[in-house]
Amino acid sequence: MSLSTRQIGFGFQNARRWASTTARAVIYTDHGEPAEVLRVRAYQLEDPAEASGNVLLQAVAAPINPSDINQIQGVYPSKPAKTLEFGTPEPAAPCGNEGLFQVLKIDPKVTDLQVGDWVIPKMPNFGTWRTHALTPSKDLIKVSNGLSVQQAATISVNPCTAYQLLTIFKKLAPGDFFIQNGGNSAVGKYAIQIGKQLGLKSISVVRDRPDFAVLEQELLELGATHVITEEQSADRAMGTIIKEWVGKGKQISLALNCISGKSATNIARKLGKDGIMATYGGMSKQPVILPTSLHIFKNITSAGFWLTANTKDDPEGKIAVIDKINEYYLSGKLKEAKFTESKFDIANGTNEQLLQAFLTGIQAKNGKQGVVFK
Amino acid sequence: MSLSTRQIGFGFQNARRWASTTARAVIYTDHGEPAEVLRVRAYQLEDPAEASGNVLLQAVAAPINPSDINQIQGVYPSKPAKTLEFGTPEPAAPCGNEGLFQVLKIDPKVTDLQVGDWVIPKMPNFGTWRTHALTPSKDLIKVSNGLSVQQAATISVNPCTAYQLLTIFKKLAPGDFFIQNGGNSAVGKYAIQIGKQLGLKSISVVRDRPDFAVLEQELLELGATHVITEEQSADRAMGTIIKEWVGKGKQISLALNCISGKSATNIARKLGKDGIMATYGGMSKQPVILPTSLHIFKNITSAGFWLTANTKDDPEGKIAVIDKINEYYLSGKLKEAKFTESKFDIANGTNEQLLQAFLTGIQAKNGKQGVVFK
Repeated sequence: MSLSTRQIGFGFQNARRWASTTARAVIYTDHGEPAEVLRVRAYQLEDPAEASGNVLLQAVAAPINPSDINQIQGVYPSKPAKTLEFGTPEPAAPCGNEGLFQVLKIDPKVTDLQVGDWVIPKMPNFGTWRTHALTPSKDLIKVSNGLSVQQAATISVNPCTAYQLLTIFKKLAPGDFFIQNGGNSAVGKYAIQIGKQLGLKSISVVRDRPDFAVLEQELLELGATHVITEEQSADRAMGTIIKEWVGKGKQISLALNCISGKSATNIARKLGKDGIMATYGGMSKQPVILPTSLHIFKNITSAGFWLTANTKDDPEGKIAVIDKINEYYLSGKLKEAKFTESKFDIANGTNEQLLQAFLTGIQAKNGKQGVVFK
Repeated sequence: MSLSTRQIGFGFQNARRWASTTARAVIYTDHGEPAEVLRVRAYQLEDPAEASGNVLLQAVAAPINPSDINQIQGVYPSKPAKTLEFGTPEPAAPCGNEGLFQVLKIDPKVTDLQVGDWVIPKMPNFGTWRTHALTPSKDLIKVSNGLSVQQAATISVNPCTAYQLLTIFKKLAPGDFFIQNGGNSAVGKYAIQIGKQLGLKSISVVRDRPDFAVLEQELLELGATHVITEEQSADRAMGTIIKEWVGKGKQISLALNCISGKSATNIARKLGKDGIMATYGGMSKQPVILPTSLHIFKNITSAGFWLTANTKDDPEGKIAVIDKINEYYLSGKLKEAKFTESKFDIANGTNEQLLQAFLTGIQAKNGKQGVVFK
C-alpha cells in the first residue's frame, strides 16, 4: 500500500477499526504450572482486509492434550513463539495446539473457504485456546461440517498419530498383524480402528484391571483382534500363543509403544526379524529398554515418532491423512475418543470463566478433556 | 558322468583315491564348553576332480572370535550344519568362521584361482579350524599374498564390521563426526582408522585406566580425533565440549555401540536430530537403554548390525568391502588388530596338539587369539 493510498483510505480504516471483534485468548508470559501462569487477555481483531488472504475465526471447541500442558510448563521441545499481538506489555504465548474453528468473516478474495466452514490449524503452536483468531486461509485445513464437534476438534492429533504410526514405518499388507501397548489410550483405540480399516489385525496390550473383560469387549467391538494384559505380555509362554495367532511362516513386523520400560521390551520381543518398534509416548516415565540380542540377531529397530515434527516436515502429508480420517468419520467407520466438555459462552462469559473452563480440564484426572464454545 | 565313463574310468579313480590328503578338523557333536565337547577328527580329502569346480586348501591361520566360542556353546543364533563328512558316526559340526587358506590343488578348469593363492571363505560357518578343506572355488574370496598372515586371516570379520557400520546406516560426508564406545576393541580401532580413510572424525569412548594417556596416544596415532573416558561420556558437561568439537551448526549423526547399558545411553545422548545408534555388541551384558524423549523429540533410531546376516543377504557387498580393506592394507593405511599366535605343525603335529592349540587360544584372557599353521 503506497503512502497516498494510506492517506486516501484513512477515513475508511477508521470505519474498519470500529468493525472489530473482541477476542480473548488463554496466554502465559512465563512457564510454570498452568494455575499459576495462565491468564486470559482480551484484544481486538479487525475484520479481514481485502486481498489480505485472511480469515476471521470463532472457536467451536478445543481439546486439552498432555503436550499442551507440557508446553505451558516449559518441558516440551516445541513451543509457540511469544508475541505482542495480545496487547501485553511483555511478549506472551498462546496455549493449545489442536482445535476447531468456524469461519466468521473472510477476505472476499479467499476462494477456498466460505463463511460457516469448519477449519483446523494446519500447524502446531497455533494457540487454539482462544475465542477468535485472524489468520491466513493458507494456514487452515477445512474439515467437514458433517462431523461431530468432538470428532472435528480432535481430528488432527490422535487419529493422525495412529494413521501415521501404522503407515510410515512398515508397508503392512492386509492380514498382517501389529502389536501395541496402551491399547486403551486414545491413540491405541484409533490404531485398532484404523488398522481394521487398513485390513490389519492387532494385538493390544492393556493394564490388568478388575473389569478387564469389559475393556476387552469394548476394544474387540472397535475391531481389535486380540487384547492381552501386561502380565500376559510379560509371560514368555504368550510368545507361543501369539505365534499361533499370527500363523505359520508369518510374523509381527510393527510394534507401537506409548509406555516404554518393560512394557516396550515385552512388545519388542514379539516382533519377528527386521521388525520395528515405533515409540510415540513414554507413560511409564521409564526409558525404552531393548535386549542387545534383539538388535543384533533379529535386526529389530527402535524408532521414534513425533507428529509435531512430521507435520512441520510434511504438511501436505498431514492434510492427506486428515482427509482420510474425515472420510472414515463420515462413513461411520471410526468412533472418536470422547472428551469431557467444559462449556464457555463467548458472548456472555467472563475472562475468569474462560480461564476456569481450561483449568478445570487441565486439573481433571478422568480421561480426555476439552472446552466447547457457544 | 555316464555309467560307461564311470566303468572306463574305474582304474583312474582308484589311482585318484590313492592321491588323497589327510585332513584334520576341530569338531563337536554336542554343544557345551569347548574343553569338554571339542575333539579333532582326521579324515581323507581326495584331490579336486576335473570339472568339479573344487579347490583343495591348506590352512594358513585361523583367529578365535567370541562368536566361534558362542557357537560351540550353542548360544549363537547362526550355527554350522552338522554333517557326516568328517567320518564320525554321529553328525558333527566344524568350528571357526574366519580363517586364511592357501590353494594346494585345483580343478584345472577353475580359472579364477591358482595354486599358491590365498583365499578366505565367502560365507560364515565354513569351519575354519581345520588343516585342509575341499571346497568349490565359488565359495572363496581371493586375498592378496602381499598382506601379512594376520591381516589376511582376520580380514573378513572385524574390519568389515567397522567398514559396514560406518557406511550402511548414514551417508556421512568427509569432516563429519561419529562417536563410538569400545574404542579400544578390535572393531573400534578399525573404525577409527577406516573412518579416517573416509575423511571422518571420531570420538572414541574407552574405560578409564591408570595408563589412559598411553591408550589415548595409541588411538590418536591410529587416527582418532578425540578419546574420552566412560566417566567423561556420562558427564553432561561433556555434551557442551563435544558440541564445540563438532562445530556450530553441525551434529553427530552416527553412534556405534558394542557395550550397551549406560555406555550406549551416553553415546546416544551425543547424537543430533535424526541420528542413528548402531549396536553390534553388548559387552556389558546390559540391554540398550534409550530415554523415550530421544526417540520422540530427537528422532533417534536405535538399530542393530550383524555381519553374519549382512553377508548372507549380500555376499557381493561383503566382497567389495574385503577388496577395499585389501587396498587399505596394501597401501599401508590400516594397521591390523594383532592376535596372539598358537602354532601348529600340520606335517608333524598330533591331533592332541591341534586341539590344544585352539583350546589355549579359547582359554586365554589377554586379547585376541589365533592359530597359525605351518
